[in-house]
Amino acid sequence: MQKHKIKVAQFGLGPIGIESLKLAAAQSWLEVVGGVDIDPAKIGRTLAELTGEASLGGATVHPSLEALFAVATPDVILHTAGSSAATSFAQVRTALEAGVSVASTCEELIFPALKTPEATAEYDALCRRSGARVVGTGVNPGFVMDVLPITLTGVSRRVDSIYVERVVNASTRRQPLQAKIGSGQEPDAFRAKFAAGKAGHAGFQQSLALLAHAMGWTLEKIEETCEPVIAPGPITTKFFQVAKGQTCGLHQRAIGTVGGEAKIILDLQMFLDARNPHDTVVVQGDPALHLTLNGGVAGDSATVAALINIVPRLLAAAPGVRLMTELPTPSWVNPVSGR
Amino acid sequence: MQKHKIKVAQFGLGPIGIESLKLAAAQSWLEVVGGVDIDPAKIGRTLAELTGEASLGGATVHPSLEALFAVATPDVILHTAGSSAATSFAQVRTALEAGVSVASTCEELIFPALKTPEATAEYDALCRRSGARVVGTGVNPGFVMDVLPITLTGVSRRVDSIYVERVVNASTRRQPLQAKIGSGQEPDAFRAKFAAGKAGHAGFQQSLALLAHAMGWTLEKIEETCEPVIAPGPITTKFFQVAKGQTCGLHQRAIGTVGGEAKIILDLQMFLDARNPHDTVVVQGDPALHLTLNGGVAGDSATVAALINIVPRLLAAAPGVRLMTELPTPSWVNPVSGR
Repeated sequence: MQKHKIKVAQFGLGPIGIESLKLAAAQSWLEVVGGVDIDPAKIGRTLAELTGEASLGGATVHPSLEALFAVATPDVILHTAGSSAATSFAQVRTALEAGVSVASTCEELIFPALKTPEATAEYDALCRRSGARVVGTGVNPGFVMDVLPITLTGVSRRVDSIYVERVVNASTRRQPLQAKIGSGQEPDAFRAKFAAGKAGHAGFQQSLALLAHAMGWTLEKIEETCEPVIAPGPITTKFFQVAKGQTCGLHQRAIGTVGGEAKIILDLQMFLDARNPHDTVVVQGDPALHLTLNGGVAGDSATVAALINIVPRLLAAAPGVRLMTELPTPSWVNPVSGR
Repeated sequence: MQKHKIKVAQFGLGPIGIESLKLAAAQSWLEVVGGVDIDPAKIGRTLAELTGEASLGGATVHPSLEALFAVATPDVILHTAGSSAATSFAQVRTALEAGVSVASTCEELIFPALKTPEATAEYDALCRRSGARVVGTGVNPGFVMDVLPITLTGVSRRVDSIYVERVVNASTRRQPLQAKIGSGQEPDAFRAKFAAGKAGHAGFQQSLALLAHAMGWTLEKIEETCEPVIAPGPITTKFFQVAKGQTCGLHQRAIGTVGGEAKIILDLQMFLDARNPHDTVVVQGDPALHLTLNGGVAGDSATVAALINIVPRLLAAAPGVRLMTELPTPSWVNPVSGR
């Protein structure tokens, strides 16, 4: 199907960036033309070396987009370098100015207008001038707690409220996630970290804001809480030793209110040894809808799938800062046919 | 949000058309400008009379699109007048030629190229010339067995096969559905009807074809079977008396094959007194995904929701014969904000 391969470059070569490159290497419809990272230990090395994927050939790591653009002309930047919309926008400005589109796992880019409305308007205008698009995507945020429930309401006559519950068994996940959820910390220390904005799941309020936007609801407020889950006994993982009474995970909730009523509730539990991982969506309305993803969706490896799968849809979209809900239905892109 | 109301007209004033009008009447972002039906008993009557919705005012039923267009200028035709793509295309030709878009519940329009590739290409070219769009939508086909599984694969690194299972408790449904599934017929009589193309669920192969299209799979063949479900004892509904041993529903399967392998299996059971109605999607691949809609989605009332909800997305799409997967993520449209 694909006449010309889509050229991509990877911005950010941490664990998610490496996963993104490995998946990109398996796509016959993609050509990886380079990488960008500020780590001096990575600059100048080949992507084949860093990933173990020989098919990535001689493409190398550059210290900046400017340096990359001096030798390569990507169509899309795959951006996996942080959670802040303001920082991410600034990081990819050179690409957007050059009319190069950006697909990002930056959590706040799921709904950037929530925290950075001025920057969102500014970059949207920039994209419209240059012909570039930028979108935030992923599994959570980006799918299970926002895009999936929104899609479900496509068959709704009336939506009264939306409840989404996600339970993740953190024992099966990477070290950074086990650290993020507070594994082994004293409960009060974890609470203090969340209060200081240094713990908790990023992009939670953005998922809620995207849901509200799609439902046409103007929220009066978003309230977010995060409590530690306390280990009922000692827990040992590949990365942590948690004693009874210490933190073994988090229970985060966000509630969006309209007219004094809780219209959207997001409930996220990520903890070690969770026995019943799942994602559940309850739409109250007509018809009532009750969806469960048994076992849930593992975020780590599926996040880069969401990132790669959005590339052709992003390139076909109108220029601007785009939301996932403005792009065609997400779906797997066949690595051979590119469709 | 909405500056100008979107003007719609209803083509087909059977039970689904009436439901569509009732839901349209509740939308502040829609203006209903008329109806079209060939039934002499309906022509000339007001939509308010036919639906009991006073807000539909003086808009009336016309015998043809030509007659409607003589007095009204709809932006979109809501089409609920049959299952055949060829017939539906011909019915709305006048609208498409005039650049008026069409949203339809016609089952075969979910993937019209399956049965009518030449007509699909012809009407696609016509739409591109005139600026019109046409799309088929609904609950099944149109959502649970196609668009929902496709959306789910947006987080897939690899898809090996897709299985979708739908169990409908027909006891809770309208008379025409209870009739369609063979209620009260002798099993052999039902089998003969299916073999003659006069029984079974319409649009089943189109759902499968849309799934294959979205996955980039070229199917070698689609095999479809339909067996009666036999009543285990006497069953009484509002509309039927079924004796033990008679047909109380259908069990329809469609299998799509690639390289001799069953890549897509759709399994539909619609029968009286079904105890566990649900929709389940199993995506084999990486990650494995297992989704269940507990209780399922009732087709009758949700079908017109899908129809109304697609209107703003359809109008924003590029002209042509469109697939649901080419439009932005479906979602509920708030009746007040029109968003």
